[in-house]
Amino acid sequence: MMMRAGRSQEEIRRSNLSALLRQVHLGGPASRAALADRLGLNRSTIKGLTADLTAAGLVREELPTDTGKAGRPSLVVRPESERVYVLAFDVRVDRLIAARVGLGGRILDRREAARRRAGADVHEVVGVLAGFARRLHREAGAGSQCAGAGAAYCGMIRRDDGMVRFGPNMGWVDQAFGTELAFRLGLGLPVAVGNEAHLGALAEHQRGAGVGFQNLVYLHGDVGVGGGIIVGGKLLDGDGGYGCELGHMMVNPYDGRPCGCGSRGCLEAEVGEQALIDAAGRTAELSGRDGVRAVVRAAGRGDVAAREAVRRIGDWLGIGVANLINLFNPGLVIFGGMLREVYPRAAAQVHARVAANVLAISRERVRLRTSALGDDATLVGAAELAFAGLLADPLDALARLTPAGRRDPVSP
Amino acid sequence: MMMRAGRSQEEIRRSNLSALLRQVHLGGPASRAALADRLGLNRSTIKGLTADLTAAGLVREELPTDTGKAGRPSLVVRPESERVYVLAFDVRVDRLIAARVGLGGRILDRREAARRRAGADVHEVVGVLAGFARRLHREAGAGSQCAGAGAAYCGMIRRDDGMVRFGPNMGWVDQAFGTELAFRLGLGLPVAVGNEAHLGALAEHQRGAGVGFQNLVYLHGDVGVGGGIIVGGKLLDGDGGYGCELGHMMVNPYDGRPCGCGSRGCLEAEVGEQALIDAAGRTAELSGRDGVRAVVRAAGRGDVAAREAVRRIGDWLGIGVANLINLFNPGLVIFGGMLREVYPRAAAQVHARVAANVLAISRERVRLRTSALGDDATLVGAAELAFAGLLADPLDALARLTPAGRRDPVSP
Repeated sequence: MMMRAGRSQEEIRRSNLSALLRQVHLGGPASRAALADRLGLNRSTIKGLTADLTAAGLVREELPTDTGKAGRPSLVVRPESERVYVLAFDVRVDRLIAARVGLGGRILDRREAARRRAGADVHEVVGVLAGFARRLHREAGAGSQCAGAGAAYCGMIRRDDGMVRFGPNMGWVDQAFGTELAFRLGLGLPVAVGNEAHLGALAEHQRGAGVGFQNLVYLHGDVGVGGGIIVGGKLLDGDGGYGCELGHMMVNPYDGRPCGCGSRGCLEAEVGEQALIDAAGRTAELSGRDGVRAVVRAAGRGDVAAREAVRRIGDWLGIGVANLINLFNPGLVIFGGMLREVYPRAAAQVHARVAANVLAISRERVRLRTSALGDDATLVGAAELAFAGLLADPLDALARLTPAGRRDPVSP
Repeated sequence: MMMRAGRSQEEIRRSNLSALLRQVHLGGPASRAALADRLGLNRSTIKGLTADLTAAGLVREELPTDTGKAGRPSLVVRPESERVYVLAFDVRVDRLIAARVGLGGRILDRREAARRRAGADVHEVVGVLAGFARRLHREAGAGSQCAGAGAAYCGMIRRDDGMVRFGPNMGWVDQAFGTELAFRLGLGLPVAVGNEAHLGALAEHQRGAGVGFQNLVYLHGDVGVGGGIIVGGKLLDGDGGYGCELGHMMVNPYDGRPCGCGSRGCLEAEVGEQALIDAAGRTAELSGRDGVRAVVRAAGRGDVAAREAVRRIGDWLGIGVANLINLFNPGLVIFGGMLREVYPRAAAQVHARVAANVLAISRERVRLRTSALGDDATLVGAAELAFAGLLADPLDALARLTPAGRRDPVSP
């Protein structure tokens, strides 16, 4: 609320460089005229800022391919997507993913591997991810530069240092995942770690179904059900960064299914992967995401047990969603992860619960949609986390990159 | 994110005047030295700002009564509590309250009346409140000045114009309460209207149990149960201002009690006033807040039915609180309204549910407390809403006050 006098020209320039780079990173290539308009700055300021970012190798200016208009065309400012990239990692219960993501958000290259569910310790996971990173680096063009690293993890993450406090579905408690991955990458860069559903929400908010919404709820279904909630344009993270645990909202206090957290009747126990497979009576033959798909497909073919199972999950999901709409008065609810596959078949139950249980005024304008980024939402969120430092202060972030970060950064 | 160059000295001065006035309004009288320290400004700047606010009649400087130190004492800057005030209104199901609240937050004078529950329309309520306001004004000192008006209402309020969209417990739907009260006051000032639980949360956050907490959940029990949730230091209001409806979180999907919203098993149906009285088997003889007190007292004396009723309500309350802690990872949960009386007797049940249903990491640091402002929390919140304009831009707000606002403002 308070403001010191003497905010310097240098501070203003940094702030404007940040705004401009963020604009082309999230909004895509744009003419100087359009950028001036969107940022509320005059064209000569945009010209100067663009020159600075071009000199730093972060953007380039090009003639547009064809404007369709007569007269001198305005130069288009593009992010240097091939030259400047981050490493993004996604640690899921059943899959490990690493990607090179260019400025502007393009996934340039990726490596991934399925995991057996049980018994992977942090060293093994970090080893696989560092191996992926080494190959991704090797195949990056000469002169390209790694500007950050970020990781999504399916558990509760300490904000300061990327410590996994609790990852029940992989059996991790207090594992120094972020620190260890940073050490093994050897880039001289920290690895920012976030909860997968938080990052999925950020990604949908910045690049997916939630663009333009200031208040949204993202539900991420997997083995468990996580959440990311955007309130007033910002992720709700709470006092320690552990907010949005909507999967542990108790919805069934009487005959609730046991939950991985030790309680019963939590939303994730009632609508997670195993709940659907069990409800369809196919516990012995199916499991995981493939199992969910099989049940949803069977329901689509009219299989009675599968339809009843989807209906049952949809009803619990609807109670959870109704509670969330009453609490957050969001403009949008997004179903991601495996819920992206379940929701379209269960929409009738969800809508019925919303109609019955949400206050009329709070459901006036809310929309329900599936994730636009699909299975990549969490990976894209990890990339955005990695870009955060560069976007906040572009020139300073570049200056701080170590020589190791500039060339062949991953030690063997 | 973006910042225009050329932020003027005048803008900086306004921003600093706002910060200084807010500091003495919320933090109380303070020496120039302390203010310089808290605001991060140098003493000569503080001196100039204080002179401006003194000339406007908003603060005054005094010698401290006794510093206990040798040497020249530092002048103390005090808000002009008697001279500059707002009108605060609180419309409850069973009570109407109006108060004159001085800058600095002191309740200088108040009028109130009990209401019969049924059938009060908006004109009748506004008439009573305007009558109260007339008397409060008449008894204000000569030369004092009304700087704003705010009202708390037990329902869902449209942000822009104080329209009551839905006030189920008084049977109001789409009533132009804010506009009509402003007209009847004749001050040439708008009346800012807020949901009572939102305002209770703001009041506790700024002046009560929640000072210093950036993330807190306030539960306000009355006929219904409302909520105000502070996320990152700001009220969660959602897309339309209708967020925080924690009373309509469904906790009991099987044999839930009917709720005023048309659904069943909502938190407010299970823990509101009537739920407690019914559970104690005293529906025929007791009602309202007095009825709640009677049951809680009986439980304290060992009455078996009353103890069982409090235990039952405590268990549902605990489920609701556990869900909220999982979602918001707050530092603090505050029980206000009638829950301030119920919670101390039901704490064992609430704690048991928190222990069983909240993820261990999210309950590491959360505290549960009763409201510090007690029954005045909502009224104090209405006063803060009324002060918001003056605090945001002190000199401009004063300049905009009409001549009517300066003297005897309430037309008959």
